Amino acid sequence: MSKTQITAEPGMPQIIITREFDAPRDLVFRAYTDPELLVQWMGPRDLTMTFDHHEARDGGRWRYVSTDAQGNEYGFHGVFHGTPSPDGTVQTFEFEGMPGHVALETLTLAERDGRTLVRTVSSFQSVEDRDGMVASGMERGVHESHERLGELLTTLQAG
Amino acid sequence: MSKTQITAEPGMPQIIITREFDAPRDLVFRAYTDPELLVQWMGPRDLTMTFDHHEARDGGRWRYVSTDAQGNEYGFHGVFHGTPSPDGTVQTFEFEGMPGHVALETLTLAERDGRTLVRTVSSFQSVEDRDGMVASGMERGVHESHERLGELLTTLQAG
Repeated sequence: MSKTQITAEPGMPQIIITREFDAPRDLVFRAYTDPELLVQWMGPRDLTMTFDHHEARDGGRWRYVSTDAQGNEYGFHGVFHGTPSPDGTVQTFEFEGMPGHVALETLTLAERDGRTLVRTVSSFQSVEDRDGMVASGMERGVHESHERLGELLTTLQAG
Repeated sequence: MSKTQITAEPGMPQIIITREFDAPRDLVFRAYTDPELLVQWMGPRDLTMTFDHHEARDGGRWRYVSTDAQGNEYGFHGVFHGTPSPDGTVQTFEFEGMPGHVALETLTLAERDGRTLVRTVSSFQSVEDRDGMVASGMERGVHESHERLGELLTTLQAG
C-alpha cells in the first residue's frame, strides 16, 4: 500500500513530499492541472476550494480560495514558471494570510508499470517560513488531499 | 566603504547577497527594474546583455541573453511573482544551459540616511543546484555587477 512521505529536515528551507498512485501518469497530470479536477481533491475534506483563475502556461497566474464550514476564506496564489508538463511543473506559491512569504514548488511525475510516483519539492525563502508552513498543520491537509486524489483517480479509471 | 557580501552556507540551498549603495532607494529600484538601466550594469564587464522582454508585473516574463567576446550566447529567463516594488521583487530564474533547474529570487531594498541596502535571497530546488551556481563562477559576476551598479548610480545622481 502506498503512503505519503513528508520530509522536512531540521534547518533546511524545504519540504519534500512523495506518494505513489495506482494510475497512469497522464491521468495524474490531468488531476494536477485541470481546475475542475483539482477542486475535487486538493485540501482537507472540510474545506471547499474554488478557483478564481488557473492559467496553466508560462507566466500564467493561479488563485484559489479555501472556505471552511464557518465561511472563513483562505486565499492562495502564484504564477507558473514554464509550461506545466508531466516531467515538471514549476510554480510559485503564496498564502495570502502571510503576504510576502513565497515558496517555489516543483512537481514531477514518474511512471513505472502503470503506477505514478508524485514528488513535490517546496523551496522556501527561509527556514522560518518553512517551519511556519509545517506548524500550520499542512501535514493533515497533505495526507487528506492524497487520500482524496487516490479516490478520484480510482473513480476516473472506473468511469 | 561598502562591500558585497555573498553568503552560501554549506548544506543550504540558498545564496544571500547584500550590498549597500550610496543612492536613494527609488533610484536603486529603477536600476533593478528598467531594462535600459539593467543592461548597463548586470553581469561582468566582458559580457554584453540584451533583453528579449522584461515585463515587470505579476505573471510577467523576462528573458535576457549574455554574449561574450567570442559570440557565445547564454540565455536566462523567468517570471515575476507579484508586482515588483522596492519592498520586494520576487521572480523565478533559470539558466537555459541547465534547463529544469529553477531558483526563486527575492530582492528587497531598505533605505537609511539616503543610502540603500540591497538584499537578494536566491532559493534553489536543491543543495546541488546551489553548489552548481557557486561553482559556475557567479561570485566574480556579482562583484563586478555591483561595482558597475555603483558607478551607474553615481553617474545618474550626477546627471
